[in-house]
Amino acid sequence: MDALDSQLRFILEADKLKNVLRQTPLCDGSRRENSAEHSWHLALMAIVLGKHAPPGTDLGRVVAMVLLHDLVEIDAGDLYVYADEEAQQRQAAAERAAAGRLFGLLPPDQAAALRALWEEFEERRTPEARFGRALDRLQPILLNFSSGGESWRSHGITADQVLAKATLIEDGSAALGEYARTLIGDAVARGYLAPAEP
Amino acid sequence: MDALDSQLRFILEADKLKNVLRQTPLCDGSRRENSAEHSWHLALMAIVLGKHAPPGTDLGRVVAMVLLHDLVEIDAGDLYVYADEEAQQRQAAAERAAAGRLFGLLPPDQAAALRALWEEFEERRTPEARFGRALDRLQPILLNFSSGGESWRSHGITADQVLAKATLIEDGSAALGEYARTLIGDAVARGYLAPAEP
Repeated sequence: MDALDSQLRFILEADKLKNVLRQTPLCDGSRRENSAEHSWHLALMAIVLGKHAPPGTDLGRVVAMVLLHDLVEIDAGDLYVYADEEAQQRQAAAERAAAGRLFGLLPPDQAAALRALWEEFEERRTPEARFGRALDRLQPILLNFSSGGESWRSHGITADQVLAKATLIEDGSAALGEYARTLIGDAVARGYLAPAEP
Repeated sequence: MDALDSQLRFILEADKLKNVLRQTPLCDGSRRENSAEHSWHLALMAIVLGKHAPPGTDLGRVVAMVLLHDLVEIDAGDLYVYADEEAQQRQAAAERAAAGRLFGLLPPDQAAALRALWEEFEERRTPEARFGRALDRLQPILLNFSSGGESWRSHGITADQVLAKATLIEDGSAALGEYARTLIGDAVARGYLAPAEP
């Protein structure tokens, strides 16, 4: 099989990400978001919000990472960000196996390069990975807020839980972290999100 | 309003692209594709198929263009690629107005930069725009083929019409153009696509 055939098999396999549903609603609350359109939204955010990344961040790498980061959900499914530790560990193992299968559809050099980008995003060591992860945490907060807190309320999530997840936003971008904290406070004030349990 | 507020308004407005439906089905034929997940698919294709672009093509610019290219459909809707000339002209005017409103949500310097990228894609003069447009023409052929020609058959499209649209693929990438021609021939052979009318 030549390189183009392998690449097109990967492209067609990727189509399945459009059928993986997340917990987050669209802004208008009409339905749940899928992981493909979520990935598009993050890539658009990387382009538009790039000036809020630390100086020197390579935005092209951020865009590539967020476009790829959820492909493993084709096999592993999407896990809600507030799932427990045991579920998170099972998910991590399933995602590693999925990365092997999916990137393995590509020609070997490309498989290695794209898998390395996926691992970089997961490991959160570079400024690019940290900025991408910040966007991935900020985007559902924006959508939840816009829809009046739909998925927070239906899952009984409280403000302290959202704030704990928001530390990753500060870690990738000081400006976006500050914005997220303000928005979470506003969500509590409006009754979209329950305050921290006493 | 500061820059971040303007940028986030744009990001939230962009969410509406997830509700714009195209004629193309997903590969599994389960439903029609929306323009946000289509844009994600094209961006992924730009990364994976970049070696089939002419040497020197700036793939980062291609990715940015395909991520942005359909935003105007939030106001203008999606027009089927086989619509008549009059409908195409009405659509072009509606898309220009939409570009003014949508990119106009951003801070002025960023509005100008992203609108310029959108226009570059539309005008198809640079190698980046031509490669991006090639992907935009190839992707629905791949999805249609995978689903057994669903939208071709339901709209009574014939092979000569698909081949005429495929000239844009050759124009952006010789290898992808050749692949598309072979696939169209194969679609006719399998009965997914009606042969050219006599």
